[in-house]
Amino acid sequence: MILGAIEAGGTKFVCGIGNEDGEVLERISIPTTTPEETMRLVVDYFKEKKVDALGVGSFGPVDLDVSSPTYGYITSTPKKHWNQYDLVGELKNHFHVPIGFDTDVNAAALGESLWGAAKSLDSCLYMTVGTGIGVGAVSEGKLVHGMLHPEMGHILVRRHGDDHFAGSCPFHGDCLEGMASGSAIEARWGKKGIELASDSSVWELEAYYLAQALVNYILVLSPKRIVIGGGVMKQEHVYPLVRKWVIQLLNGYIQHKNVEGHIDTYIVPPALGDNAGLCGALALARQAYAIKKTS
Amino acid sequence: MILGAIEAGGTKFVCGIGNEDGEVLERISIPTTTPEETMRLVVDYFKEKKVDALGVGSFGPVDLDVSSPTYGYITSTPKKHWNQYDLVGELKNHFHVPIGFDTDVNAAALGESLWGAAKSLDSCLYMTVGTGIGVGAVSEGKLVHGMLHPEMGHILVRRHGDDHFAGSCPFHGDCLEGMASGSAIEARWGKKGIELASDSSVWELEAYYLAQALVNYILVLSPKRIVIGGGVMKQEHVYPLVRKWVIQLLNGYIQHKNVEGHIDTYIVPPALGDNAGLCGALALARQAYAIKKTS
Ligand SMILES: Nc1ncnc2c1ncn2[C@@H]1O[C@H](COP(=O)(O)OP(=O)(O)O)[C@@H](O)[C@H]1O
Ligand SMILES: Nc1ncnc2c1ncn2[C@@H]1O[C@H](COP(=O)(O)OP(=O)(O)O)[C@@H](O)[C@H]1O
Ligand SMILES: [Zn+2]
Ligand SMILES: [Zn+2]
Repeated sequence: MILGAIEAGGTKFVCGIGNEDGEVLERISIPTTTPEETMRLVVDYFKEKKVDALGVGSFGPVDLDVSSPTYGYITSTPKKHWNQYDLVGELKNHFHVPIGFDTDVNAAALGESLWGAAKSLDSCLYMTVGTGIGVGAVSEGKLVHGMLHPEMGHILVRRHGDDHFAGSCPFHGDCLEGMASGSAIEARWGKKGIELASDSSVWELEAYYLAQALVNYILVLSPKRIVIGGGVMKQEHVYPLVRKWVIQLLNGYIQHKNVEGHIDTYIVPPALGDNAGLCGALALARQAYAIKKTS
Repeated sequence: MILGAIEAGGTKFVCGIGNEDGEVLERISIPTTTPEETMRLVVDYFKEKKVDALGVGSFGPVDLDVSSPTYGYITSTPKKHWNQYDLVGELKNHFHVPIGFDTDVNAAALGESLWGAAKSLDSCLYMTVGTGIGVGAVSEGKLVHGMLHPEMGHILVRRHGDDHFAGSCPFHGDCLEGMASGSAIEARWGKKGIELASDSSVWELEAYYLAQALVNYILVLSPKRIVIGGGVMKQEHVYPLVRKWVIQLLNGYIQHKNVEGHIDTYIVPPALGDNAGLCGALALARQAYAIKKTS
């Protein structure tokens, strides 16, 4: 089976070809400029590839409600030119194959649950701590959607008593993303995360906020594994701090070996590395193909 | 189809007979004493009923992992005599029919989504604000489970600046249940909720905490409707306060008509009233019967 994958990001679209085992065979990167320009290059790339299905993991917000007239659109994004853009519609104009479409983080969650750090588990959570904070989830073997797709990066956290930073989220100020994203770190300390590597108070605070969010995700979704990636997590010493705070905040309430004794294999980095986004999109293509076959 | 339903609570077991349309035809109430005594009366009640399936919505924590050796048990409950009790096992000793088993709040969520306030929606959240706070959820048409069943009643909330109550949760102090359950209200104000009915500061604070939790549930699960019941919500003036705070805390981030303009039909009381628990158990029985038929 030949599957096409598109990782649609705010700065670049990564397109690739792979198979149903999550193997990426080739890839190219296309800059995100205007939809016309970017999508023309995307369409050109796939034109001769004879893909059996396409998968798109996209920056958002996106409309994932198949009964909606704007299904497949990137909706109210601040990203210039892309507001209310019919991404899936444009692909359908050129390719008559099943098309899977979801958020970039839901795609990554599905990819990690099929071929990565949460392999063979029917639930997992994938969080990326980068410029912003995005989270996707698989629950009962399915990606989680409802009224809209989840927006877990914005959940409310308790501020640390010593932290007087107002928060950088334009909507909520001191929500998780406003306190713990890469942009928040830069705004709070006046330096990029990488320049703060040796300042332990930065990472203790970072872990405190991330752990609060994870505790709430655990209490709401009870994922069987939590995968955290993104630029900020290149600071690998943050993982043990996050694990420590999760245990401390749960305080014995969740009596499960994942939390008591095996937290090192419960909260983990991604296994798909630089291919996470593209593998996620492959996973969506595979899913779309399978659904088409059975319907 | 004749379905048997058991609402297994800490003070009483309500047992009943109903059908696949959620109609309860008869019911009895049995006090929760020892497992031997209580379960003997439960078994006696159903013995002559010729049920096609049984459903149990139980107080918890419970083991819902079908691959676990303690599946169907009430696990680490502080409730005397019931710790590590094999509830489903005991029913299986007497009834050779499919048995559905879940938490009381997951049962209620399923019941409301089949026949109640969230009818015809494939996702909803059910929250009960009583002695404690319990929450169940349907997502993508299925009850949410993972590593364990969700324990959303204990998520972390931000304390209100004017509130100096330490919180009543033995694990977390000031988690949601510790700040906003019926017991928390009583511990904070020294009076029962019903005696505080006319004190508006009590209910403003209550709504502030409940709304924080709902905002986080919305961001994580994106339910298509939220149903809130339980003794404390008999104070019906709390509903509009909760809705107001949810809108305020989301601050325009969730662009959906449910939140913008239709919040009155988004956050609602249960529709099944006093039958919610029993209907939930019926829903579990119906589901267990359907699964058996297709497997
Ligand atoms: N080694 C590092 N240590 C700390 N922070 C880093 C590191 N590398 C990147 N970051 C931060 O991560 C963010 C970028 O995240 P990334 O996941 O690479 O991209 P994006 O979120 O834009 O897709 C920036 O805020 C950057 O400062
Ligand atoms: N009318 C009312 N107003 C405010 N609080 C109430 C009212 N009725 C019951 N409560 C409170 O609700 C809690 C009991 O909740 P309930 O849902 O009836 O039972 P339980 O949670 O034990 O199953 C108690 O804390 C009680 O004080
Ligand atoms: Zn925010
Ligand atoms: Zn608690």
